[in-house]
Amino acid sequence: MKAALFYPSLAFCSALLLSACTSTSQNNTVPADLARLSDSALKSELAYDVVKSLTVEVGPRIAGSEGDKRAVAWAEEKFKALGFDKVYKEPVRVRNWSRGIADAKVIAPYQQKLFITALGGSVATPEGGLITQVVMFDSLASLKQADGAHVRDKIVFINQRMQRDRAGKGYGPVVIGRSQGAIEAAKLGAKAVLIRSVGTDNSRFAHTGVMQYSDDVEKIPAGALSNADADNLQAMLNAGKDVTLAVEMRAKEHGWQTSYNVIGEFTGSESPDEIVLIGAHLDSWDEGTGALDDGAGVGIVTGAATVIKNLMGQPKRTIRVVLYASEEFGLTGAQEYTRKHKAELGNIIVAAESDFGAGEIYQIDTLFAPDAVEQAKPLFAALENIGVKQGHNQAGGGPDVSMLPKYGVPVVSLLQDGTYYFDYHHTANDTLDKVDPKALAQNQAAYALLAYFMANSGVDTRPAPASH
Amino acid sequence: MKAALFYPSLAFCSALLLSACTSTSQNNTVPADLARLSDSALKSELAYDVVKSLTVEVGPRIAGSEGDKRAVAWAEEKFKALGFDKVYKEPVRVRNWSRGIADAKVIAPYQQKLFITALGGSVATPEGGLITQVVMFDSLASLKQADGAHVRDKIVFINQRMQRDRAGKGYGPVVIGRSQGAIEAAKLGAKAVLIRSVGTDNSRFAHTGVMQYSDDVEKIPAGALSNADADNLQAMLNAGKDVTLAVEMRAKEHGWQTSYNVIGEFTGSESPDEIVLIGAHLDSWDEGTGALDDGAGVGIVTGAATVIKNLMGQPKRTIRVVLYASEEFGLTGAQEYTRKHKAELGNIIVAAESDFGAGEIYQIDTLFAPDAVEQAKPLFAALENIGVKQGHNQAGGGPDVSMLPKYGVPVVSLLQDGTYYFDYHHTANDTLDKVDPKALAQNQAAYALLAYFMANSGVDTRPAPASH
Repeated sequence: MKAALFYPSLAFCSALLLSACTSTSQNNTVPADLARLSDSALKSELAYDVVKSLTVEVGPRIAGSEGDKRAVAWAEEKFKALGFDKVYKEPVRVRNWSRGIADAKVIAPYQQKLFITALGGSVATPEGGLITQVVMFDSLASLKQADGAHVRDKIVFINQRMQRDRAGKGYGPVVIGRSQGAIEAAKLGAKAVLIRSVGTDNSRFAHTGVMQYSDDVEKIPAGALSNADADNLQAMLNAGKDVTLAVEMRAKEHGWQTSYNVIGEFTGSESPDEIVLIGAHLDSWDEGTGALDDGAGVGIVTGAATVIKNLMGQPKRTIRVVLYASEEFGLTGAQEYTRKHKAELGNIIVAAESDFGAGEIYQIDTLFAPDAVEQAKPLFAALENIGVKQGHNQAGGGPDVSMLPKYGVPVVSLLQDGTYYFDYHHTANDTLDKVDPKALAQNQAAYALLAYFMANSGVDTRPAPASH
Repeated sequence: MKAALFYPSLAFCSALLLSACTSTSQNNTVPADLARLSDSALKSELAYDVVKSLTVEVGPRIAGSEGDKRAVAWAEEKFKALGFDKVYKEPVRVRNWSRGIADAKVIAPYQQKLFITALGGSVATPEGGLITQVVMFDSLASLKQADGAHVRDKIVFINQRMQRDRAGKGYGPVVIGRSQGAIEAAKLGAKAVLIRSVGTDNSRFAHTGVMQYSDDVEKIPAGALSNADADNLQAMLNAGKDVTLAVEMRAKEHGWQTSYNVIGEFTGSESPDEIVLIGAHLDSWDEGTGALDDGAGVGIVTGAATVIKNLMGQPKRTIRVVLYASEEFGLTGAQEYTRKHKAELGNIIVAAESDFGAGEIYQIDTLFAPDAVEQAKPLFAALENIGVKQGHNQAGGGPDVSMLPKYGVPVVSLLQDGTYYFDYHHTANDTLDKVDPKALAQNQAAYALLAYFMANSGVDTRPAPASH
């Protein structure tokens, strides 16, 4: 059912109610309440305070760990402290893996330590570690074409550098080596795989991230070299000599544990069953404090909802903030949310996740019923005033809401500047100092505008069109 | 004895021998040979190849370690391979200390790992580590004024941030906390001292560097927190709660070992006993590969001397490249060089050390006999053409030559842009990728111009004036 339009139409606003329309963007008039909310959210330190609290008081929180448990408790307390009127958690079974030490060194023809980290989900090396020759490939594709005799009993080094890009377009072509490298290397008889870190930096911190095994291929240890160490190893190999590595990794599976999606709501005053869902993920990798990934998102969506409530009062539709469990290990929190709420997914007016760091938002993409895009013009106008352009209508919505459109749930992607995101992503360097409070507040403003407009305007963008 | 002027005077050059003078700087005509040398050195990859070879084939080389021994052998081989006609080493007794593990964590009111490193020369923590409250001071000066009751049996945290500056002026005011912190904290009964890293970055790599004890004060463990972790600890302490740390460090002294100053020369064809000394230090800290500190310097001075020989032939005075042992642990190589060569220090025409990373040189300071500064104008003109301005006549010359002026030895400081040097200085992140080949070649050109001019022009700047 489409709700009635709560919000004055643009034509109405510009012709009859000028007092309700304060500023104009390039294309449209911005309603006064949106302008006021935007100004307030830009000035509010709420998002920053939330991510600071999470990183300082909890820190690392890999799924199923003690840190994860503390994060769940922290999230419940934080929602309550901020005045969310409904706070609850929903259990999610999560895989619990621990990294252990990960040491590597070149032992011939030179002697040098290499900085590595285990990829998420990797098995350990055999007791005492591995000592064997390393062979280099420039991509997963090259590895797939390799002769088994060249690879057998060796360590495979996939040496593909990620390119820097505002939208993070360099990630996809390289991350395939992280996820599939162990499978392809094992098929050829390799003892282990090391990839060049999927990151745009030159730090010696290696980038972790989840990797995959295949049931019909031997599981071999998989790690990432820091970019600086990948350069060093590459220089040795390019000099044409055989290079021998010693690698020891003590990663370990601890079985499945219970974690939680933690949910805070401001219940709708007129249509409480209609949900505006904004989310982020609560878990993080274990080496940094999860400030950018995804403490920033947690701060942004929690701050946005709170700013709305504090400034504009109770929303007409329910604003639901979902902090998902275990995004990093296979989106299990989001999968569980979708399963559990399947019967009521039709009530979600729109869903959006913030999970790309703390860079400024420059574009809004939507996945709305096509004829509804026009109705969202006041939102686009307000966003344009804070530097966010309207993009296309084929949005994905972010990882944890990516499975919703197939149920007809409209989603929005607020695209962030990710130019420097992959310098820190999945490393020990993902810490609070990398969060720019001003850019974070701009994110908060954009999510506040989105959530408030979708909760209070009466615009209904359902159902999402079939995904592209 | 002052040597005769080998070099045409500026007046001579501009009036009579125009063909020998190709380009002009703002103030002066640049002799053709200097211009040719400069062009060639700017294009030569020699300096980069040398630092690459050192970092890839040797890597970390803390004084007295196996890496240090490999570095000495590498340097002798490198000098020979590059055609130095005299290659030798002189023994230096060096202190050999190893870092061991250095772990710290907050255990109350939160639970978080902190990234630390031991300061160079620190003792270990007692077996099993230390667990105690931490107290914060904003500087060494504040610590000195503290009440002992506030500090006794606690860990002192000196939380002073280094400011970024092209000339590295932020280092001095902060490094005093690194060198003296353990003494002042121990005087007040502290169990250990942790300083905020002396560095301008926000990385989680902590910055090491040598620290000092006093014989009449108890030796307590001394470490550095990464800047990101110092921020985190500061946030916890500023929230007003007592914070308890667990710290374990296993640093160890291994007694004194023999290392070497390694020396390569191009013997002077006319005045072999007159020495133009350009140097750098061969040792490095143990966590990075010593690319900026001081592989870059090794590359620059080795490359500069080699470019001169390859392009201009044998110099008239001897060009001596000295790669000093154990600069990081008290300049012991330089001290030994000075002792051993005391009788012949008067033969050094000029000395200069490159030890400030790989940033471009922007200024030349001198410490010349005052009436000799004018004679160096062709050199200043040539340097100006590669972006190097003439500065003052009160130079220090660099750490390993800093003790020479009191013996009347003129020195030169070629000031490098150190804006980013202290992002990496004394960390694991000091690796080859931080070296910009173009900036390194400009350094090589500046040192080549200096060494060639001082070796071939006949200009004699001795004796250095009494130091300022």
